Amino acid sequence: MNTLSTKETAILLIHCPDQKGILAAVTSFLNENRGNIIYLDQNVDRAESIFFMRVEWELDLFSIPKEKIADYFETLFAKKYDLRFTLHFSSERPRMALFVSKMSHCLFDILSRQMAGEWEVDIPMIISNHNDLKPVADKFGIDFYCFAKDGSNKEEQEANEIALLKEKQIDFIVLGRYMQVLSDKFVSQFPNRIINIHHSFLPAFAGAKPYHAAHERGVKIIGATSHYVTTDLDAGPIIAQDVVRISHIDSIENLVRKGRDLEKIVLSEAVYKHLQRKILVFNNRTVIFN
Amino acid sequence: MNTLSTKETAILLIHCPDQKGILAAVTSFLNENRGNIIYLDQNVDRAESIFFMRVEWELDLFSIPKEKIADYFETLFAKKYDLRFTLHFSSERPRMALFVSKMSHCLFDILSRQMAGEWEVDIPMIISNHNDLKPVADKFGIDFYCFAKDGSNKEEQEANEIALLKEKQIDFIVLGRYMQVLSDKFVSQFPNRIINIHHSFLPAFAGAKPYHAAHERGVKIIGATSHYVTTDLDAGPIIAQDVVRISHIDSIENLVRKGRDLEKIVLSEAVYKHLQRKILVFNNRTVIFN
Amino acid sequence: MNTLSTKETAILLIHCPDQKGILAAVTSFLNENRGNIIYLDQNVDRAESIFFMRVEWELDLFSIPKEKIADYFETLFAKKYDLRFTLHFSSERPRMALFVSKMSHCLFDILSRQMAGEWEVDIPMIISNHNDLKPVADKFGIDFYCFAKDGSNKEEQEANEIALLKEKQIDFIVLGRYMQVLSDKFVSQFPNRIINIHHSFLPAFAGAKPYHAAHERGVKIIGATSHYVTTDLDAGPIIAQDVVRISHIDSIENLVRKGRDLEKIVLSEAVYKHLQRKILVFNNRTVIFN
Amino acid sequence: MNTLSTKETAILLIHCPDQKGILAAVTSFLNENRGNIIYLDQNVDRAESIFFMRVEWELDLFSIPKEKIADYFETLFAKKYDLRFTLHFSSERPRMALFVSKMSHCLFDILSRQMAGEWEVDIPMIISNHNDLKPVADKFGIDFYCFAKDGSNKEEQEANEIALLKEKQIDFIVLGRYMQVLSDKFVSQFPNRIINIHHSFLPAFAGAKPYHAAHERGVKIIGATSHYVTTDLDAGPIIAQDVVRISHIDSIENLVRKGRDLEKIVLSEAVYKHLQRKILVFNNRTVIFN
Repeated sequence: MNTLSTKETAILLIHCPDQKGILAAVTSFLNENRGNIIYLDQNVDRAESIFFMRVEWELDLFSIPKEKIADYFETLFAKKYDLRFTLHFSSERPRMALFVSKMSHCLFDILSRQMAGEWEVDIPMIISNHNDLKPVADKFGIDFYCFAKDGSNKEEQEANEIALLKEKQIDFIVLGRYMQVLSDKFVSQFPNRIINIHHSFLPAFAGAKPYHAAHERGVKIIGATSHYVTTDLDAGPIIAQDVVRISHIDSIENLVRKGRDLEKIVLSEAVYKHLQRKILVFNNRTVIFN
Repeated sequence: MNTLSTKETAILLIHCPDQKGILAAVTSFLNENRGNIIYLDQNVDRAESIFFMRVEWELDLFSIPKEKIADYFETLFAKKYDLRFTLHFSSERPRMALFVSKMSHCLFDILSRQMAGEWEVDIPMIISNHNDLKPVADKFGIDFYCFAKDGSNKEEQEANEIALLKEKQIDFIVLGRYMQVLSDKFVSQFPNRIINIHHSFLPAFAGAKPYHAAHERGVKIIGATSHYVTTDLDAGPIIAQDVVRISHIDSIENLVRKGRDLEKIVLSEAVYKHLQRKILVFNNRTVIFN
Repeated sequence: MNTLSTKETAILLIHCPDQKGILAAVTSFLNENRGNIIYLDQNVDRAESIFFMRVEWELDLFSIPKEKIADYFETLFAKKYDLRFTLHFSSERPRMALFVSKMSHCLFDILSRQMAGEWEVDIPMIISNHNDLKPVADKFGIDFYCFAKDGSNKEEQEANEIALLKEKQIDFIVLGRYMQVLSDKFVSQFPNRIINIHHSFLPAFAGAKPYHAAHERGVKIIGATSHYVTTDLDAGPIIAQDVVRISHIDSIENLVRKGRDLEKIVLSEAVYKHLQRKILVFNNRTVIFN
Repeated sequence: MNTLSTKETAILLIHCPDQKGILAAVTSFLNENRGNIIYLDQNVDRAESIFFMRVEWELDLFSIPKEKIADYFETLFAKKYDLRFTLHFSSERPRMALFVSKMSHCLFDILSRQMAGEWEVDIPMIISNHNDLKPVADKFGIDFYCFAKDGSNKEEQEANEIALLKEKQIDFIVLGRYMQVLSDKFVSQFPNRIINIHHSFLPAFAGAKPYHAAHERGVKIIGATSHYVTTDLDAGPIIAQDVVRISHIDSIENLVRKGRDLEKIVLSEAVYKHLQRKILVFNNRTVIFN
């Protein structure tokens, strides 16, 4: 995991109804137990009166044993403040499964970052509904599994995929232009743990062929959107978006070409934030910590 | 009219099915008749095989009298090439009517540009459905007309507005956050001559309260869109768009604040292009010449 | 002053060497004295180990009298934590002097925001080295003072300006394309209280005629930069920057035209942040709170 | 070569003093000789009165033999119009040499585009001053040559590089974060045929360590610039630039991380334009055709 410290750290993501003293309470608790805070970002949604916080501290001198930290937070804070939290440790190295179809730009972008050491993540497997990109997986020495899907076998193939994902202890899934809609059953197994890239500036042009739709509408800017997948198609919490200017000169092929660069950068940005444990989902929206 | 020449010029906007020799034919015709070309921009939509062109030339030595130029183009080119054209002269100074409601940011932006001489346009009148902005109109010495509208009198008030617009020989209308939907009847009187600013990145968040919708959806970028008004709400040809990044930190009030800057700049950019005669509408899309 | 509360608030901007417990200490102090915190943003510069914080709280129930708050912070925190702070109250309405020369776009942008109520600021005076924009000042009912400067009278005229600024109790100065370099003597009277807009993406094209230089260099993007004025020309702490794409098509006149929109928006963004008390200057750089 | 046609085409890049009839003359010449024009973009630099044009036409019916086209243009146009031109054919597949040092992001981006068929280019060789990236070259099956350089052997190693580049018939060179300054002697062998990526928004932060300099200066936006290499360091004709927002929160490491994405996208954009024969260099600036 990416961290600011060379020591092992704990990372806590919190949200609760805003209330006096919550920030002082948590930071004092960490200080008093000799947890050296190396990162703290917090904010309050004034409209809904919700407090959000991400705090990271070094464990070497922390007086509470690592395996009991969650218990302590549950006991001391969760009920008192009506607080929800998730806890991560920098020693955990997440395991990603990458789903692709035939286009290679997101695949290459992700694999090259991983290989260059930009990200601390294991990518033990690539899953596809086609064999086209197996040579790329081979080039990078990553296991490639093809689960071809048609109208009749989708449920069965998804069951196979889930079994494999569980077996390989996959933490989260990245859809790198995977051109298949995942079933609700599949999605519900990985809540806020499937990251998709949609090739439009959502909510504009949800669904199929967004570049064609953008050209038809005559927009002057196109975009790409990465989001967590929910059972509501193209409507999950948005993690990152970016855009690029186009003009009447641009053919659909040109939109596709320009869009590829957006897609890979926006998807990788989202994966990076996820790996950093900097995303908190609340009310189908994301809080992205600094 | 904004032009590159100190002499009077003619401006021709053309589109026709793409065909060999059309560009050489038009430029040769102007050259042979001693029209000094000071601007030429053309392009071809390959997918639809349509040729688009904007050409501007000085009239002082041009051998065809100004008032006969349209006839000559009709006779020599229109039928032969199945060509549509519009012709403008730099000596025409367009007359704009500005429609506003209660928000002043677009109003100030437009009036200050006009007053500073950024644009060559006359603004003989401001129309509103409220009296709130009359003091601003007074400040700039522009006639202000209030046509209050309610459920029952819209048709009548629009008839009054149209009568006034005709009387004042208005060429085009700018809706500077005018918070009333114009009827189809009104719109059809001014085809491609009503410029609106919509406070979202269309086609996302068409209709009412786009900033609320953007906040609700959790987008990471908001936008503004200027377009010609058609009878299809928020669906007319897009002239200009721009965007700005937001984050989970931003309240709806903040989106409104950031959006105001986008709105005024994007609307004024569209008006500028319109005044420059650089916009050609085709198939509900705009060609914006260089 | 812009604030999130309808009650009077205090705003504290802090920086000090980073150290355990500083955040908890300040927030606990405010909580214990019944100061309802309505805004808190903090961050740590890890490279230099400096803690930065902006906190705002309501004064109605705060147990320390308003006029003694600074004393308390001095006593309780300043020495102990080697901490520097500035304290503001939402009841203070800052007084701005606006310096302009001949171009009106920044002037109009600022006056229209003030008139529309976007900003809570008084603008009792406009100062210029020319009389060209007096009609605009008159339109908005603001006193206009012309201090023409030439090679021989600069020192004298600046002395006159300073006397007037002091007399009118001006808090800060905005240079809205004021085309005169202020002397070190003048600048040193208003540390971090003079906001300038430079018409380039600093540090590129500092000095005179940046659009000409940008055109000559053939850049593909131009920018504008607002910064606090220091005695080092165009080298003060940067507050805001923005850019716009250009191409080989754009003449210098076009760069100037596109640049105007950047300049006014970027300058007003900087003024807004200043009015919000969201800027802290450290080591010739700005911390801009959320 | 990337082209709009499935037939072989010729591409002509022209510049000459602007003069009446030049556009009609060239297009008429192509039409009369049955060259089907599939692309035409032209513009005039009004300040310097220079005409620029890129035209592409199909050769299958063109009455002038391919190998004589240059002669005809020389005879018919060059002298008469004081015109310079370069001529390319879509059947030519350019050969690129890629220079890298230790960072892999540009290398991966370029190789993955080439492998995915985004570009029509051969990359027969990678040259480096270190062996670190040999495994990547091996992965993609491309010859890797290491020419280590120190203070004493630079001239000799460059001579070896040039010999190899000539032997392999390299058309142009891409410096993908190659951390060595090429000598004037080397550069002069490849005029407008060496594309570099500089990790700043030039002309700001030319030279070494631009991210450190950007952080030190406290800019709010960073950029990347691709340009043709000239003997004047970081001062060659700019092809493409892009920027990304940063804040006081961003450490130098973060600037480096964000900058990597800019660098690879901007460099690849420049290479794409070069491959498309859409760049014309004039007066140390680029004209980038549509």
